[in-house]
Amino acid sequence: MRGKTARVSEIEMNELVLPNDTNLHGSLLGGRLMHWMDIAGGMVASRHSNRIVVTAGVDSLDFKHPVHLGDIVRIKARLTWVGRTSMEVKVVVFAENFETRQIRLTNQAHIVYVALDRSGHPAAVPRLLLESAAEKGEFLRGEKRRRNRMEKRRGVRTALK
Amino acid sequence: MRGKTARVSEIEMNELVLPNDTNLHGSLLGGRLMHWMDIAGGMVASRHSNRIVVTAGVDSLDFKHPVHLGDIVRIKARLTWVGRTSMEVKVVVFAENFETRQIRLTNQAHIVYVALDRSGHPAAVPRLLLESAAEKGEFLRGEKRRRNRMEKRRGVRTALK
Amino acid sequence: MRGKTARVSEIEMNELVLPNDTNLHGSLLGGRLMHWMDIAGGMVASRHSNRIVVTAGVDSLDFKHPVHLGDIVRIKARLTWVGRTSMEVKVVVFAENFETRQIRLTNQAHIVYVALDRSGHPAAVPRLLLESAAEKGEFLRGEKRRRNRMEKRRGVRTALK
Amino acid sequence: MRGKTARVSEIEMNELVLPNDTNLHGSLLGGRLMHWMDIAGGMVASRHSNRIVVTAGVDSLDFKHPVHLGDIVRIKARLTWVGRTSMEVKVVVFAENFETRQIRLTNQAHIVYVALDRSGHPAAVPRLLLESAAEKGEFLRGEKRRRNRMEKRRGVRTALK
Amino acid sequence: MRGKTARVSEIEMNELVLPNDTNLHGSLLGGRLMHWMDIAGGMVASRHSNRIVVTAGVDSLDFKHPVHLGDIVRIKARLTWVGRTSMEVKVVVFAENFETRQIRLTNQAHIVYVALDRSGHPAAVPRLLLESAAEKGEFLRGEKRRRNRMEKRRGVRTALK
Amino acid sequence: MRGKTARVSEIEMNELVLPNDTNLHGSLLGGRLMHWMDIAGGMVASRHSNRIVVTAGVDSLDFKHPVHLGDIVRIKARLTWVGRTSMEVKVVVFAENFETRQIRLTNQAHIVYVALDRSGHPAAVPRLLLESAAEKGEFLRGEKRRRNRMEKRRGVRTALK
Repeated sequence: MRGKTARVSEIEMNELVLPNDTNLHGSLLGGRLMHWMDIAGGMVASRHSNRIVVTAGVDSLDFKHPVHLGDIVRIKARLTWVGRTSMEVKVVVFAENFETRQIRLTNQAHIVYVALDRSGHPAAVPRLLLESAAEKGEFLRGEKRRRNRMEKRRGVRTALK
Repeated sequence: MRGKTARVSEIEMNELVLPNDTNLHGSLLGGRLMHWMDIAGGMVASRHSNRIVVTAGVDSLDFKHPVHLGDIVRIKARLTWVGRTSMEVKVVVFAENFETRQIRLTNQAHIVYVALDRSGHPAAVPRLLLESAAEKGEFLRGEKRRRNRMEKRRGVRTALK
Repeated sequence: MRGKTARVSEIEMNELVLPNDTNLHGSLLGGRLMHWMDIAGGMVASRHSNRIVVTAGVDSLDFKHPVHLGDIVRIKARLTWVGRTSMEVKVVVFAENFETRQIRLTNQAHIVYVALDRSGHPAAVPRLLLESAAEKGEFLRGEKRRRNRMEKRRGVRTALK
Repeated sequence: MRGKTARVSEIEMNELVLPNDTNLHGSLLGGRLMHWMDIAGGMVASRHSNRIVVTAGVDSLDFKHPVHLGDIVRIKARLTWVGRTSMEVKVVVFAENFETRQIRLTNQAHIVYVALDRSGHPAAVPRLLLESAAEKGEFLRGEKRRRNRMEKRRGVRTALK
Repeated sequence: MRGKTARVSEIEMNELVLPNDTNLHGSLLGGRLMHWMDIAGGMVASRHSNRIVVTAGVDSLDFKHPVHLGDIVRIKARLTWVGRTSMEVKVVVFAENFETRQIRLTNQAHIVYVALDRSGHPAAVPRLLLESAAEKGEFLRGEKRRRNRMEKRRGVRTALK
Repeated sequence: MRGKTARVSEIEMNELVLPNDTNLHGSLLGGRLMHWMDIAGGMVASRHSNRIVVTAGVDSLDFKHPVHLGDIVRIKARLTWVGRTSMEVKVVVFAENFETRQIRLTNQAHIVYVALDRSGHPAAVPRLLLESAAEKGEFLRGEKRRRNRMEKRRGVRTALK
């Protein structure tokens, strides 16, 4: 299995905020945005692995600005780290007001996906070919985030016993 | 009102084909695809005019290949012609199979939108600044398509009397 | 396989325009209407062929009047032309205001469907039994529309090379 | 306010059963069918009263046959009884298998709606002009159903105290 | 197959009324509420029988108070009667205004479900272990409701001939 | 404004996983689950504050087990920490297989909401009355999580410059 660059699987989604996506104040529901982010990241992981993927974990999210009815939500998703069967995708969200054309960073997160084979078991994925110093730095931070997730998961499991 | 280039309003949408988008054969419903195309084109017209827009007309559509459950649908939308209150957007659709990574042109159409002011009346929109010979050619073909639509509309109205 | 008349497969749909079908002005989204038109036409083609069908093409559409939140959308769909495996359905859309009871023709299009067998290949469909001069005239115009579509398709394919 | 016949407000809906309407066995969810029945009946009451309406009550329902993925659901709705501000609509549901063309009565119910004025209070509605002995008989049975509902409601309220 | 108590399968659902659930007055659509009630009851029947279930019938419903955009709808569902393959669930609906915290009984119904085996045929279900005099009384009333449904069904079938 | 206990605003949601909630393997989409978690937490925050709320942030999430088509998803949400205008809700997710009745902890997260007044500005919320040592411990951990979020947010903002 040959490695692949992040460039060949990255993706951009644009979504229009419609009435059924909003609350009583006409603000985008946080959960609706998370749903879009998960689909965007999943498409990237699916393109890298040529597999069906499942979401394994999501970074903490910080909703910086409210997004409004009629805004355009732009979601950019790109691989940052790849393990044996799991892939970390950075998902960045911008909201654009259609009248003022003001664009604001709304959100960003790292989402981890696992590739599955046809019987539903984790499947090996191609390596990530790093093309720049920035990508290498991001990959190393991805390794660190992974270790943190592993530790946190153990902590949660202990706490639940 | 200053003119704007097509470049600053163009948009790319990527959508994952989910179960609720498909028929009994797991093929994307034609109407669902038209819905996505209309939203993509509407976002472009809305970005050019900084206005709410309504769909005024759609070109004939030709569904070349079936699109399947799990495919990624990529929709590219870009302005081709602009009148006083109406805008024509070219919408091109590709489908990508997540396993084979094969990408196929599925569909293309020109969709016309009208900008509305806050009271719901047609509103003037910025001119389209043409940046290349290709854009100029497309603009002239857009004028011709508009004349054809006008004639056809008159024909339909006569036929309905 | 015995022929069938258009009468036995025609259909009428009535849909209520709800908040999630509209834009910021409370107008029905064009794409949502196209989705309903495609489903109405598909039911007619499915009833004529007793098969699952896929959408193969749609005529140019002209949205004559905006449709509003709370309006009733009435869609009438009826076969106009039938080939070996494909069927053309005429879909006419009216909108009725629930307060004034004013009914307006909103839209009309011819949509072409292909019948599929259980393995997903095109399947032969019953002939269309024509019952009146009007139906015969419409059938001939359907043949002409088909030839135009074939020519246009070839043109598009050439243009894309 | 002049009376109106049942004929001028009656409606027929046809819906295609899609994946998101079904359970794990590919059978139409009962609640989804009730949702469609309520919308069909509401359109009839809205057309009779030229008002927004709310659902006030539904008869007992009996799901006679399962409806399947790909079936066409035909819903016929027609006024049977009208009071000062409330209207009773008979809603009858048929399911048609697209392969066998077998049509089966699936369901029927009487649904009661109340017309509302713009401030949300019950509003008077036109009388129902009865055109046949059958309609008169149905109207009398409607009166009886109304009395039963009133009695049952009092019973429920007492039981809840 | 050992019997089970009603307690181990009872369920509580809480739903937020969002824009796409409401009519032009911002009131919850009756059909949407019936859809939620059916899903709540179905989960209870599915938990009792460990089977997929289909809705067989619903009691008459009486919508006592309008429910509004932004309200929280609380649905409590609990088994009242169990036969060989069918189960009756009592579904009670409350609406809570998020500003005033006022809670009102909105609705209640008995819904009957049939358990299905993997080939789609009715399957035997566990007996209902009754734990109190109240449960026993409800069970007897459930038997009576069942007899009424049987009689009414025969009446409807006769009327339809 | 009098304080309130966590008990009076806690909530339990039960959702059935339907076809439109799943991917090609019949597994619940991660984003769909996040959407439900956000709505459950939002109902709790809305009940505590008697206000419309917006999502301000979400903890990292760890999807421990896949959830399948037909499973019942149980979401429990309860306040853990309250500031001047923001509230932290602990959301815990269980999935129950309808055949085996096996129940598994799937997910847990802390989600932060801000209460808004009618003009959309942050509004003061009631204090949280702590009723046990466990609640006090959770509140202190909530304070610590809040400080971590504040620090992380500053870090992200610096990184984005």
